[in-house]
Amino acid sequence: MKHPYPNPLPDRERGIHYLWLNSEEPSMNEFSFIKKLSKSIKTDRSVIVGIGDDTAVLRYKKDRYLLFTTDMIVEGTHFLIKSATPYQIGWKAMAVNLSDIAAMGGLPKWAVVSLAGPFRRGGRWKEFVWEVYRGMSAVGKKFGVQIVGGDTDKADRWTINIAMLGEVERKYLKLRSGAKIGDSVFITGSLGGSIHGKHLTFTPRVKEARYLVTHYPVTSMMDLSDGLASDLRRIMEQSKVGFLIDEKKMPLSRYAKDTQSAFRDGEDFELLFTLPKSAAEKLEKDINWVHLIGEVIPASQGLRMRDRAGQVKSIIWKGFEHF
Amino acid sequence: MKHPYPNPLPDRERGIHYLWLNSEEPSMNEFSFIKKLSKSIKTDRSVIVGIGDDTAVLRYKKDRYLLFTTDMIVEGTHFLIKSATPYQIGWKAMAVNLSDIAAMGGLPKWAVVSLAGPFRRGGRWKEFVWEVYRGMSAVGKKFGVQIVGGDTDKADRWTINIAMLGEVERKYLKLRSGAKIGDSVFITGSLGGSIHGKHLTFTPRVKEARYLVTHYPVTSMMDLSDGLASDLRRIMEQSKVGFLIDEKKMPLSRYAKDTQSAFRDGEDFELLFTLPKSAAEKLEKDINWVHLIGEVIPASQGLRMRDRAGQVKSIIWKGFEHF
Repeated sequence: MKHPYPNPLPDRERGIHYLWLNSEEPSMNEFSFIKKLSKSIKTDRSVIVGIGDDTAVLRYKKDRYLLFTTDMIVEGTHFLIKSATPYQIGWKAMAVNLSDIAAMGGLPKWAVVSLAGPFRRGGRWKEFVWEVYRGMSAVGKKFGVQIVGGDTDKADRWTINIAMLGEVERKYLKLRSGAKIGDSVFITGSLGGSIHGKHLTFTPRVKEARYLVTHYPVTSMMDLSDGLASDLRRIMEQSKVGFLIDEKKMPLSRYAKDTQSAFRDGEDFELLFTLPKSAAEKLEKDINWVHLIGEVIPASQGLRMRDRAGQVKSIIWKGFEHF
Repeated sequence: MKHPYPNPLPDRERGIHYLWLNSEEPSMNEFSFIKKLSKSIKTDRSVIVGIGDDTAVLRYKKDRYLLFTTDMIVEGTHFLIKSATPYQIGWKAMAVNLSDIAAMGGLPKWAVVSLAGPFRRGGRWKEFVWEVYRGMSAVGKKFGVQIVGGDTDKADRWTINIAMLGEVERKYLKLRSGAKIGDSVFITGSLGGSIHGKHLTFTPRVKEARYLVTHYPVTSMMDLSDGLASDLRRIMEQSKVGFLIDEKKMPLSRYAKDTQSAFRDGEDFELLFTLPKSAAEKLEKDINWVHLIGEVIPASQGLRMRDRAGQVKSIIWKGFEHF
């Protein structure tokens, strides 16, 4: 499926406005619809966080929360049979869920797998399914998640859904809603160009996230799945803050075309997190796999970028009907 | 998708052999493949039951187990847009999972929903999705399950995956593996012809299952999803027993064509359970929504039926390559 690429918007306010379009991003239309739908969902006090973060957070034990998440990947949308190996498809299906558990500061525990596809008499589906399973299993084992159930069905296109349970000590739970004005903004790894391969082979940041939440006063965290600009918007919305991102500090992957690509490209599956400025210095000194990319500013200022020339610009995120 | 209908096998041993074919049933080929795959999966002691029962059973709290299950329904395989309303599709997606939790003797708690489909610009997908959600929500509320998360994606065909968590007190957990020789075999409701509508509108037997496990010494239980003959085979395999079913006691639904249809038709979503003969009499007297249909016999005797004339026949279940 092809998507129109961004056209620059006319200048407005001070500075140039960018139009970030993301082919993985639901349209505002869908956003508002899903928001309306979510609001109609009533939950009781067992549900600490329902729809709207990387995973659901459930009250279940005294000292720990249960984390519950689900992700579906569909042939043609999230991978192509032509360019992805079955092993990579399995890896990705599991890794995207692991990334969600990581984003909460949690540890993955159990997974159930639904697999639908064009099983055919005497076909090569066994080889395919075995390889998908090998990929799932490889990344699952790496992070201690156990496959405990599943479902197989016929479908025209290969479709894999994994639902995962994890847990997190109450004190280490990180949400999208905790960012404070003045906090520093960090990411792990580099940004952009994931479509050239990383999205099929990435290592979910489970260990990095655990290290961060157990050693630093992280105030908010999420995984980068829909593109930096879109994902920053999510923290902005949940934390009621704005962001100022420093262009020259953005670590572009060697596959990223440019800054726009780093803002827009989805499926980086890195961590995006905030913590107080006072802790940021120590973090930058101690760890070389994180990058300070900006700071948290008041919500009224929205999403901004300081470009290489030192000029501050507003970034307009505008969705479009990709359906 | 059309599937060949059963041709009678030549007579063998004593009695006539039936060939039960079930279009929902994976072939023996797929069975053995999935068994091989499952066996390669190692789990630790937190996993009481992994792949092979209605839900996974997880050790998590002192007095209660966590139940974890997933089911995917796919347009063209499990429902047709032409003949099912979106409300019914949502209902079914949720109800099949509720039925799995019920089959363990458990109570449903939380669900996450993945929904993929042909979202199109300006299309009628909002109406569709809203109605799907209404259906899910209606049956979910009835049994106290809360929707706490989800995922939406593009796909050519509507595909819904729900993963559900439930819990069960340790003493009330029922598996497929507890049937004992001499036990009586019961089902709730009636059998066959679900394709004529029941599969889209059925009430999952959550309340019935809880009543049974809290009042009677049930030894094994499962939900009827793939057809009585296939599902009996599953208890046979897990409990290492055989079954003798009494044809004249089988409660045929008014949509069932005949006994074969009652054995073969999938998606009844009734409970199939066993308990000691000593408790069976009281159960039959006390409750009018259960039906005694047979007894548990040694594994060596396999699956048998006493026909209306009193003759005992072997029932051969033979899968076929439906993929």
